[in-house]
Amino acid sequence: MRCRVVLQLLGKVIILIGLALLIPLVLALYFREKDWLAFTYSAAITLAVGLPLSYWPCHNGEIRRREGYAVVALSWVAAAIFGSLPYIFAGTFPNFADAIFETISGFTTTGASVMTDIEAHSRSILFWRSLTHWLGGMGIIVLFVALLSQLGSGGVQMLQAEAPGPVTEKIKPRIQETAIILWLTYIILSALEILLLLFSGMPLYEAVVHTFGTMATGGFSTKNASIGYYNSPLIQWIIIIFMFLAGVNFALYYQAVKLRNPFYFWLNPEFKLYSAIILAAFIIIVVDLSLAGFKPGENLLRMAAFQVVSIVTTTGYATVDFDQWPNLSRTLLLLLMFVGGCTGSTGGSIKVGRLMVLLKNGIAELSRAVHPHAVVPVRFSNVGIVKEPLVLNILQFIGFYLLLFALGTLLMSLTPLKLEEAASAVAATLGNVGPGLGAVGPAQNYAHLPAAAKYLLSWLMLVGRLEIYTILVLFLRTTWRG
Amino acid sequence: MRCRVVLQLLGKVIILIGLALLIPLVLALYFREKDWLAFTYSAAITLAVGLPLSYWPCHNGEIRRREGYAVVALSWVAAAIFGSLPYIFAGTFPNFADAIFETISGFTTTGASVMTDIEAHSRSILFWRSLTHWLGGMGIIVLFVALLSQLGSGGVQMLQAEAPGPVTEKIKPRIQETAIILWLTYIILSALEILLLLFSGMPLYEAVVHTFGTMATGGFSTKNASIGYYNSPLIQWIIIIFMFLAGVNFALYYQAVKLRNPFYFWLNPEFKLYSAIILAAFIIIVVDLSLAGFKPGENLLRMAAFQVVSIVTTTGYATVDFDQWPNLSRTLLLLLMFVGGCTGSTGGSIKVGRLMVLLKNGIAELSRAVHPHAVVPVRFSNVGIVKEPLVLNILQFIGFYLLLFALGTLLMSLTPLKLEEAASAVAATLGNVGPGLGAVGPAQNYAHLPAAAKYLLSWLMLVGRLEIYTILVLFLRTTWRG
Repeated sequence: MRCRVVLQLLGKVIILIGLALLIPLVLALYFREKDWLAFTYSAAITLAVGLPLSYWPCHNGEIRRREGYAVVALSWVAAAIFGSLPYIFAGTFPNFADAIFETISGFTTTGASVMTDIEAHSRSILFWRSLTHWLGGMGIIVLFVALLSQLGSGGVQMLQAEAPGPVTEKIKPRIQETAIILWLTYIILSALEILLLLFSGMPLYEAVVHTFGTMATGGFSTKNASIGYYNSPLIQWIIIIFMFLAGVNFALYYQAVKLRNPFYFWLNPEFKLYSAIILAAFIIIVVDLSLAGFKPGENLLRMAAFQVVSIVTTTGYATVDFDQWPNLSRTLLLLLMFVGGCTGSTGGSIKVGRLMVLLKNGIAELSRAVHPHAVVPVRFSNVGIVKEPLVLNILQFIGFYLLLFALGTLLMSLTPLKLEEAASAVAATLGNVGPGLGAVGPAQNYAHLPAAAKYLLSWLMLVGRLEIYTILVLFLRTTWRG
Repeated sequence: MRCRVVLQLLGKVIILIGLALLIPLVLALYFREKDWLAFTYSAAITLAVGLPLSYWPCHNGEIRRREGYAVVALSWVAAAIFGSLPYIFAGTFPNFADAIFETISGFTTTGASVMTDIEAHSRSILFWRSLTHWLGGMGIIVLFVALLSQLGSGGVQMLQAEAPGPVTEKIKPRIQETAIILWLTYIILSALEILLLLFSGMPLYEAVVHTFGTMATGGFSTKNASIGYYNSPLIQWIIIIFMFLAGVNFALYYQAVKLRNPFYFWLNPEFKLYSAIILAAFIIIVVDLSLAGFKPGENLLRMAAFQVVSIVTTTGYATVDFDQWPNLSRTLLLLLMFVGGCTGSTGGSIKVGRLMVLLKNGIAELSRAVHPHAVVPVRFSNVGIVKEPLVLNILQFIGFYLLLFALGTLLMSLTPLKLEEAASAVAATLGNVGPGLGAVGPAQNYAHLPAAAKYLLSWLMLVGRLEIYTILVLFLRTTWRG
């Protein structure tokens, strides 16, 4: 491990966070809120740490895979620490654990909250809270790579360590161009959602904040009742559509535009399965709620569609308290927390692409059992044969994911949470979803948990967002040697 | 698929079941119970179906892998159907679903029961119920291969389709000898347990029945209070020890005896992990119960040891209602349901060996992430390098297992069971454990479930016992073609 180059890059990322802190500072000044001082202190401290680090003398050599992991993991830890400064200076939370929890929940686009009365806080604080979503959604590192031109192949190593999915499609031969295109797509879709929300009657500030929450598949709102606050069906449908769009592989938008082919999406088997899962879950929940006596109509359809899309994409917005729904719907929503969006989307969790590999290899493995001497590959129409080492890597990812879920649930059983509450809290944080069931359900929050549980869940959010390997390799001795 | 040879072998297995039905018949006559008629009918029908099938004219060619799967799967379905006849003729259960559930629960050594008042039934019926455990524990097919000499390599195919674990160690070059040694070891250990239970004061009939339940890691008792009925610490410790022994790879006993080395077990990493998991869980539960105010002493240690060993080995016997234990202990027991015994033991579930491969490959995969060009194999001290295709097969097994768990839980949510009850019912049947939590907990049973749920759980028990692939390949078109 060459620590100097790691620290230098880390310093530059910290500067980026410091600059991001200037946005809510401007907003606080504009709104004449007293929290401008909290942002001033936070930005000053962040820049004061980042600047000297970024000038750290070192060889400007190419970074290797392991340094890529280290930069990304440390950058996210730095984002958590410096990002929590405004909450600390503004006195938003009663303790440090809460400030860290909320910051990590923001950057990882989880949207689990320890804020008990959201509407009591200043607009600039709530703006920063949602801005962490937006920055973390497409990725701090992706943004960093997009902005910095001299990274070279180091950018590839770093992007792979932060990328949401097993394969980062190279849209462009140069990594910086890829990062720029991803962020531009993200910005354009976000601008579109803001415009539509404005058009539907939402004030500008709220439109921006809820767009951050939607496009990042985050889930923070400025209202205690989340999206349930807005009775307008139009607003809810707009958010449903943009949550769905945020769960799609962002490379597909670029390809579809480049090829001028809106049906390009349908050539992608992951997109098809993603849509099929959402449709199937939607139908099951509509039937289940109808049988349970919920009144049929547009309201029921919207409610079901909203919750299914919100959970599958790991956004976590709520329009109703789905914890009150019947058994089947509750169980289905809990299981959907393990699905997640498409590879290369802003959605978290296991992701549809990995589950597809599990299913495809499952059928192949059955064929291999019957014909032990046959070679049965795992093949997809869009990418061809997925080679054995990658299949193994993906299945191991799923194995790690479920091991972490099991261990997390065991540890959370030390709190007063009941079994299903503990399990759902872990599923919702590891998968970057947000709300769980029962005491951590959509009408509740995570504030009542002990500090140790908040740190554990914060760690799980990070592990989930950085897709396990990036965090776990740091525990390996070989990463630090040589 | 050459159906004739499959049907002929199936006929022979059915004869074996018919002969097994003669044992409780003799017992019923000895005890002068009226159920002798039920066994006479059952045995007559079974033999009347088996005999003509076994004389089905066909080429005596070698069977292929797929025919091996078909014979084994059909044999287990036949065992379920013919094995349920005594219950039907004796009127043991109010309906067919219950009779099938109890039979499959017996043969698969699950031990989940729909019998509401066990002590109300005749001794011969309860003996048959526990005998299904004992036959299914080491395996109907293993017994079949042990008894039939003309099977040749067909025996290998069949044994692999029933074997408990990813690799069947070839103890002897001839498959029949291997099967004989496994069954002899099983018989010797069973005889030893019967003797010790007699010595500790248990009547012969009950000693035999509980030995069947222990050595098969089954869990059926003749008492409504399960092993809790026996207040004798000695009896409970004997059962703890033999449950532990039944969860060990049976090939190890043979090797240890052959090499005259009692420390041979410690050279086996799976045995070490199996012991370590049990020890760790034991300590956690002892501490958890002590903190919850349970009185310290031998009673507490025995209670914790009994429940941990019973669940890890997937036996499912209970001495107390562990559903009343605090959060941490309950969650731990639920998670232990996914562990199971060692490869080649009579225990069910995922098995320690497979979890070891998941962990070892996990560490290897992290190394591969840091050193993308290095070859990092999965290596064990006793078997050397586990090749990639086998690692993939094992991870896929775990993937299938958890997919079935998720789908099963979703379907069980259609019943009035609560989420954790539904999940534990699926974990306890798929893993061949027996009791779950809440409404299907150790102090309850499965009788109150709807018939459809009973059929689903029965199917899961079969899938779990035959280690998924053997049942799932039957859904593949290629299995039946050609």
